[in-house]
Amino acid sequence: MKIPRVTVVTLGVADFRKATKFYEAVLGTPPNTSYDGVTFIELPGTWISLFPLENLAKDISSEVPVTRSGFSGITLAHNVRSKDDVIAIIKRAKSAGARVMKEPQETFWGGFSGYFADLDGYCWEVAWGPMFEFSENGELRFKGNA
Amino acid sequence: MKIPRVTVVTLGVADFRKATKFYEAVLGTPPNTSYDGVTFIELPGTWISLFPLENLAKDISSEVPVTRSGFSGITLAHNVRSKDDVIAIIKRAKSAGARVMKEPQETFWGGFSGYFADLDGYCWEVAWGPMFEFSENGELRFKGNA
Repeated sequence: MKIPRVTVVTLGVADFRKATKFYEAVLGTPPNTSYDGVTFIELPGTWISLFPLENLAKDISSEVPVTRSGFSGITLAHNVRSKDDVIAIIKRAKSAGARVMKEPQETFWGGFSGYFADLDGYCWEVAWGPMFEFSENGELRFKGNA
Repeated sequence: MKIPRVTVVTLGVADFRKATKFYEAVLGTPPNTSYDGVTFIELPGTWISLFPLENLAKDISSEVPVTRSGFSGITLAHNVRSKDDVIAIIKRAKSAGARVMKEPQETFWGGFSGYFADLDGYCWEVAWGPMFEFSENGELRFKGNA
């Protein structure tokens, strides 16, 4: 068996078309909408897919409630190459309808980051950190780790 | 700006040490525990990090509730290379303490998959599908897409 990876992060969304437009605007990547009822955003490394919340819940089990409340408990991070990128992406997300949860700022761990919530309230951290670098194919790594 | 990617998926967990052990057992990858209060599982493509739920909520905003209820709304998928891999990984997760939400089975979309919930209830789909293949570096792609 190969090294495992997260292949897809699926977000259960209330309004499938709006969510697709939102992510196209924020990520600047054309979504794959050729499959009925699901959008795949084929990012390098790990895809994002958008799927109506109730369909996602039902796909797991009839025991899973189709409602959400409180905090999802999960955040998605998008590490970038500079503080300016953090600012630009948070701004772009806001223009696309995101709610800025934390304006870009210095962090306690020596980085610089902000958070936005997407149309369904899922939280993204956009972050830069001095301890991170990127491999040739764009994967995140700690500096000094080959 | 490079093509965006999800660099890290952070799971807010109730018991940090138990969650770290669970993911080490399921993924078979040694976690990086050299940073205080956070575990990084440096998978190819996109990392997983484990962080106490209340710290994660607070890191976003004091407005975010530190409790969760119902369905998180998000699933993580681990696409694999065969039906046997689906069965083996669901079994391994169960041995590590996961709750099997859906036993491995044929799916309506022509694949074969099962779901498990981790110690905090976050749901993973382990899936094989005839329309998927993997690039040389292990990234998921649709067959026929270069």
